[in-house]
Amino acid sequence: MNKKTYIENIQASIKNIPCDLVIKNITIIDVFQNSSFVSDVAIHNGYIVGIGNYSGQNEIDGNKKYICPGLIDAHAHIESSLLTPKEYYKTALIHGITSIIIDPHEIANVIGIDGINLMIELSQNIPFDFYFMLPSCVPATEFENSGSILKNSDLYPFYKNNKILGLAEVMDLRAVLECNEDMIDKIYDAYLNNKIIDGHCAGFSIDHINAYTTAYIKTDHECHTHEELIERIRRGMYVHIREGTVAKNLRELIKGVSIHNSRKLCLCTDDKHIDDFVKYGSIDNSIRMCIRSGLSPETSIQMATINTSECYKLNKKGAIAPGYIADFLILDSLHDFKISSVYKNGNLVVKDNELINNDDSTTKISLKTQINIPNLAEDHFKISIKNKSFLNVIEIIPNNLKTNHLKIDISSLNLKCNEYFNAHIENDLLKLAIIERHNNTGNIGLGIVKGLMLNSGAIATTIAHDSHNLIVCGANDQDMILACNHIKEIGGGITIVDNGKVLYSLRLEIGGLITNRKASDVIKDLEILHNNINILSPNLTFNPFLTLSFLSLPVIPNIKITDKGLFDTINFKFIDVCE
Amino acid sequence: MNKKTYIENIQASIKNIPCDLVIKNITIIDVFQNSSFVSDVAIHNGYIVGIGNYSGQNEIDGNKKYICPGLIDAHAHIESSLLTPKEYYKTALIHGITSIIIDPHEIANVIGIDGINLMIELSQNIPFDFYFMLPSCVPATEFENSGSILKNSDLYPFYKNNKILGLAEVMDLRAVLECNEDMIDKIYDAYLNNKIIDGHCAGFSIDHINAYTTAYIKTDHECHTHEELIERIRRGMYVHIREGTVAKNLRELIKGVSIHNSRKLCLCTDDKHIDDFVKYGSIDNSIRMCIRSGLSPETSIQMATINTSECYKLNKKGAIAPGYIADFLILDSLHDFKISSVYKNGNLVVKDNELINNDDSTTKISLKTQINIPNLAEDHFKISIKNKSFLNVIEIIPNNLKTNHLKIDISSLNLKCNEYFNAHIENDLLKLAIIERHNNTGNIGLGIVKGLMLNSGAIATTIAHDSHNLIVCGANDQDMILACNHIKEIGGGITIVDNGKVLYSLRLEIGGLITNRKASDVIKDLEILHNNINILSPNLTFNPFLTLSFLSLPVIPNIKITDKGLFDTINFKFIDVCE
Repeated sequence: MNKKTYIENIQASIKNIPCDLVIKNITIIDVFQNSSFVSDVAIHNGYIVGIGNYSGQNEIDGNKKYICPGLIDAHAHIESSLLTPKEYYKTALIHGITSIIIDPHEIANVIGIDGINLMIELSQNIPFDFYFMLPSCVPATEFENSGSILKNSDLYPFYKNNKILGLAEVMDLRAVLECNEDMIDKIYDAYLNNKIIDGHCAGFSIDHINAYTTAYIKTDHECHTHEELIERIRRGMYVHIREGTVAKNLRELIKGVSIHNSRKLCLCTDDKHIDDFVKYGSIDNSIRMCIRSGLSPETSIQMATINTSECYKLNKKGAIAPGYIADFLILDSLHDFKISSVYKNGNLVVKDNELINNDDSTTKISLKTQINIPNLAEDHFKISIKNKSFLNVIEIIPNNLKTNHLKIDISSLNLKCNEYFNAHIENDLLKLAIIERHNNTGNIGLGIVKGLMLNSGAIATTIAHDSHNLIVCGANDQDMILACNHIKEIGGGITIVDNGKVLYSLRLEIGGLITNRKASDVIKDLEILHNNINILSPNLTFNPFLTLSFLSLPVIPNIKITDKGLFDTINFKFIDVCE
Repeated sequence: MNKKTYIENIQASIKNIPCDLVIKNITIIDVFQNSSFVSDVAIHNGYIVGIGNYSGQNEIDGNKKYICPGLIDAHAHIESSLLTPKEYYKTALIHGITSIIIDPHEIANVIGIDGINLMIELSQNIPFDFYFMLPSCVPATEFENSGSILKNSDLYPFYKNNKILGLAEVMDLRAVLECNEDMIDKIYDAYLNNKIIDGHCAGFSIDHINAYTTAYIKTDHECHTHEELIERIRRGMYVHIREGTVAKNLRELIKGVSIHNSRKLCLCTDDKHIDDFVKYGSIDNSIRMCIRSGLSPETSIQMATINTSECYKLNKKGAIAPGYIADFLILDSLHDFKISSVYKNGNLVVKDNELINNDDSTTKISLKTQINIPNLAEDHFKISIKNKSFLNVIEIIPNNLKTNHLKIDISSLNLKCNEYFNAHIENDLLKLAIIERHNNTGNIGLGIVKGLMLNSGAIATTIAHDSHNLIVCGANDQDMILACNHIKEIGGGITIVDNGKVLYSLRLEIGGLITNRKASDVIKDLEILHNNINILSPNLTFNPFLTLSFLSLPVIPNIKITDKGLFDTINFKFIDVCE
């Protein structure tokens, strides 16, 4: 804030000059005291400047309505929406979210600091605040090739930017416990710069939590039980209660929340898909769930506003009080958190679920993603079974990131060819490949998957956590090759092919992860993709694209695949497909 | 913390190396969740590194005892103790206070930035943390001459020092409301530097609170009613509940405190005299009062620890949790807050109310204070009553900073001399003078005071809020002159003279405000002073030195005196003693 604004705001607060906007006689949600009261709210220069008796150049009647701070999503990877920040924020605003803390971990794995810079660039000049945490673990593990490796020396210069709040989810527990040099550099420098360090503490023991908090890693969004929640807060952590599209922890965690510990709790989405977001909402829905669970509306709102602001030192965000930025919601009703309108920096941006100024102009993005894969031939996909006795198969567990490790006796399968494995439709054994796509190393990891139930054809995607190589699964090698070649042609995305023909594709031309198109177009594409996959696999009870995208994540049990090969995540070693 | 310590602490937390100290099986006060639980507390390198199952090189049995964070006094002028930081901290530690946020406003009024620097210097190399707020209003008003004028350009360079947390109590409301240039510079620069700005909001209207909070002045220790407390917190302020030697607000304010708003409350003393401190305690006693008022011990402790830490961004203070500095108290019992021992940076510093290492060495202080007053003669004290009809008299209200403005008909007094006013013992009308003592301007303000009831003699002191000129009151001019000359001789302090003889003096050789001697010596001196004043004024029901010290504060109603003359604080103008 410049000095002129500072002085003008004081003058408006003391009524020496009229305020820009006054909301009259509205019930104010007091997040500091978990209560509410009726008063006027005075706004000037995009800031709240008074709670009392005011008159303004514009006045709005707030009678029987409620005002609460704009919501803050405490942790998200918005690449999961498939949209750029410039498009994502529109859906967010409609749902009352005015600020978000994002970790551009996915795009960073593909294009490194250029990806971070792109996300920063695309988050500017819009009526919404994106804050950034720097991806701490790129690549996530050493067992795969990503598009980028980020050392502390790459991250450190970003701290000069005041939109960079700290270091994102430290997921490499082993590196912390072993005081690995680069990891220590990253977390120690974040600490020295007085930055926030986010944790990622799935299944941590008490000692692990002690180690993280000793290292000033002080948030966790991977808390799964209410007992864990209590233990984390005891040690000074903020717990981000996650309610994403796939991972949903709110119903369990809310059991541990009360007025006694609410100050250490925030709400977050982590990964929210755009179709789910549009249909069911995000942090706004989490608030509704909290209220339905018996928490007071004021405390529920507190967790999505002032607590997150304090956790991330946003200072002027998260309350309806003088000096705070005028990001706020007008609610028609409190108990079902029905949003009537949304204001950002004192300006009306959403009314009746519609954006006021829907900027439909497209932003030119110069960054071009190449899918750097070799010319594929059937030889690339050959899995020799000669003299082998069994197959190591990845079995999908529907709607779960975990997989089962199956060992199938080859002789039991009655295979037509005894030299190479071909997809075996009757037994739902499909061929799976992951092709390094960043640096054209020619690395191809092969495997066999059970559970996708394709009758024919193939599906491929460049979303393959966390290194985001090209993953493809199919009923025959020709369709797999076609799917890969088509993905290369469109520059990344998701495709379905069948019988030598491309059925449908969703282009994700930015890093093979997100697109510069509109949310509504992407939602339509996703619908058509799902309709097409239903032809190839009519009995699916889960999202096959999403499932495919996580078959490559080598930090989740029990068996996964990377561009370096089939990986036993329990014993932390590569294994052969056939033994 | 250097990197070596950072790494070692992680290693200790994960039990790769043994911890320095472990408190076994102790009940931990969880200030984050307003609860308590039993566990071990592991300490290494002066930091807490784990809450769980630990073993250490030293182990202490915590069975049936409690551990809570070291207390933090949120706001104090320690000059009121008459001691230097080097001596003050010893009493503080014994009472469980391990950190304090001080405003060296008094010494700064006398010797400006040299005074601030001296306080910073004297607060180093001791097992205690002094944090500083920069005096924002030196002088407090334009109606007096202080020893120093502090502009923003004088204060600004201090922000480089990480012990400087912000700008101290902004008491010049008018300057803020009128956007006075130097005041705006001070508060705007503090805001720009992301520093805390303390308020001083006695009797403020709602609009005044709106203006202060709009200007990011976000604390108040002058809150007097529980209704005011609610209104301040609604607007985002922290309220510091004050319980000092004179000003006591806790009993009233606690009525507005609950688990719903406790996060925005801190405890402070403001002004605590050393005799009172030693006898009754300080923040420790405030906690006991909170508990007796029905607040839970955990929430009471929270207000004196983590809340103050968060308010002033101390980061690693105020909780028993990994990563926090190991400043803590072991309590024998929780409900009467009985302190068994005190630890600072993981080291035992107090046991059974005794300091472990009482550093009795004296610190040489090179700074010499001159009492710069003219050679006084009886002429200086002459108050002409020739052709006047009445006297404007300051009447003391016992145990109150306010005074009454009396108008006394001269003819009713039956005076012996009709040219000049002399003290009139029968009517308890004593002569009062305030002599500018910083720059030898020769300024002398004269007045008449009723209420001190001296039968003879005079008392004088260099503690005279806030400009701290030399104030003297007496039954005859000769004793007044002697008192002033003696004060000059000893370089500042408090003195009592009678009948041409000095009865007793307390030397305050540093700025005429504090002394480099021990607390016990000062307490003894104060006792002797009080015994002597009882000879001259046997019927006093209040502290005459303290009362005298506040007769010069021109921001308190109704009539006060400065070196520029008698001052009507209601109409903000100087008035004649006789009219």
